Amino acid sequence: MKIAVLPGDGIGPEIVKEAVKVLNALGEKFELEEAPVGGAGYEAKGHPLPDSTLALAKEADAILFGAVGDWKYDSLERALRPEQAILGLRKHLQLFANFRPAICYPQLTGASSLKPEIVSGLDILIVRELNGDIYFGSPRGIRQAPDGAFEGAREGFDTMRYSEPEVRRIAHVAFQAAQKRGKRLTSVDKANVLETSQLWKEAMIDVAKEYADVELSHMYVDNAAMQLVKAPKSFDVIVTGNMFGDILSDEAAMLTGSIGMLPSASLDKNNKGLYEPSHGSAPDIAGKGIANPLATILSAAMMLRYSLNKAEQADRIEKAVQKVLEAGYRTADIATPGGKQVGTVEMGDAVLAAL
Amino acid sequence: MKIAVLPGDGIGPEIVKEAVKVLNALGEKFELEEAPVGGAGYEAKGHPLPDSTLALAKEADAILFGAVGDWKYDSLERALRPEQAILGLRKHLQLFANFRPAICYPQLTGASSLKPEIVSGLDILIVRELNGDIYFGSPRGIRQAPDGAFEGAREGFDTMRYSEPEVRRIAHVAFQAAQKRGKRLTSVDKANVLETSQLWKEAMIDVAKEYADVELSHMYVDNAAMQLVKAPKSFDVIVTGNMFGDILSDEAAMLTGSIGMLPSASLDKNNKGLYEPSHGSAPDIAGKGIANPLATILSAAMMLRYSLNKAEQADRIEKAVQKVLEAGYRTADIATPGGKQVGTVEMGDAVLAAL
Ligand SMILES: CC(C)[C@H](C(=O)O)[C@@H](O)C(=O)O
Ligand SMILES: CC(C)[C@H](C(=O)O)[C@@H](O)C(=O)O
Repeated sequence: MKIAVLPGDGIGPEIVKEAVKVLNALGEKFELEEAPVGGAGYEAKGHPLPDSTLALAKEADAILFGAVGDWKYDSLERALRPEQAILGLRKHLQLFANFRPAICYPQLTGASSLKPEIVSGLDILIVRELNGDIYFGSPRGIRQAPDGAFEGAREGFDTMRYSEPEVRRIAHVAFQAAQKRGKRLTSVDKANVLETSQLWKEAMIDVAKEYADVELSHMYVDNAAMQLVKAPKSFDVIVTGNMFGDILSDEAAMLTGSIGMLPSASLDKNNKGLYEPSHGSAPDIAGKGIANPLATILSAAMMLRYSLNKAEQADRIEKAVQKVLEAGYRTADIATPGGKQVGTVEMGDAVLAAL
Repeated sequence: MKIAVLPGDGIGPEIVKEAVKVLNALGEKFELEEAPVGGAGYEAKGHPLPDSTLALAKEADAILFGAVGDWKYDSLERALRPEQAILGLRKHLQLFANFRPAICYPQLTGASSLKPEIVSGLDILIVRELNGDIYFGSPRGIRQAPDGAFEGAREGFDTMRYSEPEVRRIAHVAFQAAQKRGKRLTSVDKANVLETSQLWKEAMIDVAKEYADVELSHMYVDNAAMQLVKAPKSFDVIVTGNMFGDILSDEAAMLTGSIGMLPSASLDKNNKGLYEPSHGSAPDIAGKGIANPLATILSAAMMLRYSLNKAEQADRIEKAVQKVLEAGYRTADIATPGGKQVGTVEMGDAVLAAL
């Protein structure tokens, strides 16, 4: 089994290194091949997603991804900026289903900015559609406004679009995820205003007929942003489009107070996937050896479970991380009173030891 | 001075009644005229925004609005649903500047789901553009996908659009608001992905040259949704587009835990405005006499300040509300241990007495 390893920028290389260490310690025969991506891709080959990196990602059975982005690329034209790598991988590999768990670990409840009773035991899953919506919709660009009150003025425009098969595809993924959990699915849209949402909602209702055991409800995105703050534990699985999912999954992650712990998976229809931590490249702490590698290590566990069919190995890693937390190991971002403060490498070593 | 009073649906009539009581007690010569809107407009005249209601709103110097919406209208076609009234008023009256303060009252800090140290003293202002963006952009509709991987399938589509003059217009409003406060403005966009955001950001940077005393920063919307949870007090004024503003202003309001306290203003270029509580129509508690009228009363105060040039009267109302809170009066939504629990009418009476 071949794993493409794409460390990327900022803290990416440091945290991916620890996850690779853990993968190598499992006693499995994985072929790991590394390639530059994001700013690193631009430096090495003049493009955030070099052809050779894309080719490797296509050929591999799964992709372990660090993070991309650094302020130093802010002045590049958009097509060359690091984020284009992740958008390109999602699109080229048709990774349409993004799983973003927001879990509040019992040992880390105190790290949340929310009251303990609001977040303790929090375990929700956001399923974000990742191949469509206004992120990829055309036409888009800068033009002279063709009509309206500001006709003739310079304007920026983008197109939100969702077709029925696209919505049905992500609906099935979300309903099946809900079946394996609390059997409650909340579809988030803005159907009171947007046509795209209207179609989204209709398709969700239709697919729901095939999942009688799952309770489907609908919520407007503004209300969802509120309910996540007010009563996050009232949710089980949330399914939503690319843009609403971008916003809500980050909001939900931050509720836990420990975004350095949260993995993510982006899957295609055959369960080939890209696995990355939910946090970003944090260029401000890059190279200091203090970044938390656990989200990346847990992403590797998700990879074993979803793409590589090694559920027992995934369990082993997740249990090792639990042990390490129980033993009090803490990187700076999840520091708790009385915890053993460690750096990136020591945290990776602690997980290895706990395996 | 003429005030259009549009109570609307759900708890709208109850809470507006208390605000009207307060306005009438100020000893000013206001002409108040009431008209049906939302579901009430549909019941009375077959349309959520009847012509006569729109005419009154146009003719008035300011509009006091309750809330619209009720589940019983869910099966109506979109054009007849209650929300269309508020969208129609915003558009017809060119109310492009929405002010959404998120304030955590010292007496109510405990009501927040966030830790007291995170929200105590919170006082941020979200300036949301209210006339453009994907809410109103055309083309939009349901069609056969004209291209792409799902060509020919049924799809929903909407257009996000912002022209330079539209962005500059809201930018000036936001910079001027920041000048009167902490002099820090955060412009929220998704310029790493959207063309509309790219133009938005450029226009913000250009307008900033006229406001050297205000510090402008930029933040992606996903990050803003996170930072609001993590460190809401790090913001002063946020300016953003219609859709991002919809989501973030509701998220910010909920951080305070007392959305029943939060007023809002929607202004045109001459400071004519519509004033409404930030919360919705809450049909589940309508008619029970338990809704909190304070957000509506504080909206009336904003109306006096922004549209009617009666700043002293606005101050009087705001001080009266402060007194009532200090005296321990609480509706159910802001109940605190040891508070005097009161209903809608008693709360209005308490404000009157404190005037
Ligand atoms: C980097 C950016 C394009 C990306 C997105 O918005 O999708 C990121 O925020 C994410 O959520 O993975
Ligand atoms: C009722 C709805 C159309 C409206 C909006 O989304 O703008 C509401 O949520 C608001 O924020 O005032």
